Amino acid sequence: MSTIAIIGSGAVGSFYGALLARAGHDVRFLMRRDLDAVRKQGLDIRSKDGDFRIDAKAYATPEEIGPVDWVICSLKATALDDAEALVRPCVGPGTRIVALMNGLGIEDRFATWFDPKRIFGAMAFVCINRGEPGVIHHLDYGRVSVGHYQDKPEEAERLRNLFAGAGIETIAAPNLRFARWEKLCWNVPFSGLSVAAGGIHTRAILETPALADLVRVLIDEVVRAGNADLASAGPSARIDAGEMTARMFAQTETMGDYQPSMVIDYVLGRPMEVDAILGAPVARAEALGIHVPSITALHAVVTAAELRNRGAISALTPGDVANP
Amino acid sequence: MSTIAIIGSGAVGSFYGALLARAGHDVRFLMRRDLDAVRKQGLDIRSKDGDFRIDAKAYATPEEIGPVDWVICSLKATALDDAEALVRPCVGPGTRIVALMNGLGIEDRFATWFDPKRIFGAMAFVCINRGEPGVIHHLDYGRVSVGHYQDKPEEAERLRNLFAGAGIETIAAPNLRFARWEKLCWNVPFSGLSVAAGGIHTRAILETPALADLVRVLIDEVVRAGNADLASAGPSARIDAGEMTARMFAQTETMGDYQPSMVIDYVLGRPMEVDAILGAPVARAEALGIHVPSITALHAVVTAAELRNRGAISALTPGDVANP
Repeated sequence: MSTIAIIGSGAVGSFYGALLARAGHDVRFLMRRDLDAVRKQGLDIRSKDGDFRIDAKAYATPEEIGPVDWVICSLKATALDDAEALVRPCVGPGTRIVALMNGLGIEDRFATWFDPKRIFGAMAFVCINRGEPGVIHHLDYGRVSVGHYQDKPEEAERLRNLFAGAGIETIAAPNLRFARWEKLCWNVPFSGLSVAAGGIHTRAILETPALADLVRVLIDEVVRAGNADLASAGPSARIDAGEMTARMFAQTETMGDYQPSMVIDYVLGRPMEVDAILGAPVARAEALGIHVPSITALHAVVTAAELRNRGAISALTPGDVANP
Repeated sequence: MSTIAIIGSGAVGSFYGALLARAGHDVRFLMRRDLDAVRKQGLDIRSKDGDFRIDAKAYATPEEIGPVDWVICSLKATALDDAEALVRPCVGPGTRIVALMNGLGIEDRFATWFDPKRIFGAMAFVCINRGEPGVIHHLDYGRVSVGHYQDKPEEAERLRNLFAGAGIETIAAPNLRFARWEKLCWNVPFSGLSVAAGGIHTRAILETPALADLVRVLIDEVVRAGNADLASAGPSARIDAGEMTARMFAQTETMGDYQPSMVIDYVLGRPMEVDAILGAPVARAEALGIHVPSITALHAVVTAAELRNRGAISALTPGDVANP
């Protein structure tokens, strides 16, 4: 059994941390919003695979958690700049650090802060939302792709065993970069369009032909950029656009009216993971000379949505337009 | 002096009709919303070039107007299917018909209904909005590009003279198709993005770098599709992308916080000219084998906005997302 720190106990961190705790690990959650509720009543997982509750160890600061065997950093990507300070107190000489976050190049940032040999990435493909404080709703899927920053198979296998041992469907990715682009094949079209289309769930995307067509184009662009990125690092697995598109549609169809976390952030006026989900792949594609016009357009529209949420640009109201 | 029927007295029809009436023509306005107000108090033009008022002849049906020398059809593009029935009662053996509407292929539709020799197109580049009933606010610009459906210069000149004689800056376009694509170079990026970005005015587009960059890409795609369309009809004038982009930016900069009619429709929940402004150029580009991914993406996002306005898809509310 290992000691594990969950840094960032949103839906994803809380859910996987709870599964690891249920499997017997000593899991310590860094919490903010849900701290008091979880201390009082534990962490309540309402899962399509069966509900359960754990008496979670909840902490307000990473110093109270102290050094552990594994740090799972599941901060929102918008908080990446805070990650070093929050993770550092939990890192001892033998600690391994998993970036369970959206984005591209996340592990590169971690490798500037910590020993690259001890850094891992993980991508969760899961439909999950927070409920009232201390409650997590696990709606669909749940598998995790894991990889080691230096793509050492024996290290990746170590992380795979940790998750798999807790009953989590876990895939050791061909390499970390592959796993990150694979995740973007869903996040770019479905998170992006859920916001760009004005705040809608994934079923509305699938049921609107113009949007479903755009999903196909977007996946195609993500795959082209991803494959160029993979090739730039040497011989590697490639993503097949046709297979990926078919898989993303099939998997999204079973999600029903799922709300990606990005659309929840949008509707509630919270910072969105715009850079992690859209800005980063556009920038990487541009650096590789790959033209991704649809992702670029989507990025611009979602950026405008973020600026509206922040009050930097204002949406016109009926009163503004009725009489000039 | 001519008899002129204005079919569709929105901002554009009312404004140019008023200028023609002020110049001494017998102008008869088909009106709906503003009929009573205009019958009582005339048509009030508040123009950056000087305010004026005319005792406009306002009619509720085209039958009351009867045959005229010129029909200017300034219906909203969404009402194109109604145009034949509304124009027909005003057409006699010598009547010329001007389609002063957004879109592509508009004159082709008119040519299926009426004698192609007598059909014209006109594109207004003007910042104009309706105010309270009977009041039109003319904010900026005002020039009109005109062309004859069969590109007969002497016919185009006849229409140019009609407008120019009323003090309207009028350009006889190299050909009608050219003029239509030129108009789209503004409408696609600025009308489209004003809606896609959530209901914003043109200054907010220019001041948001991601959107301003997208404007450039969109103009570039419109120009490529337009030039292919122009070439498909034989040797023709070509649009220069660099010159066009510089001109569209310079002209939009002087507009201030202008609200394109499309964003007004969006904010007020009225039907938008989605097909005329975005669908038609995408379809034409596709038919020509020209790839216009950014316009296609914009079209999809604006289509979603239209579907939201119609209630066909619903935007999530904070109550929807707070607890799944």
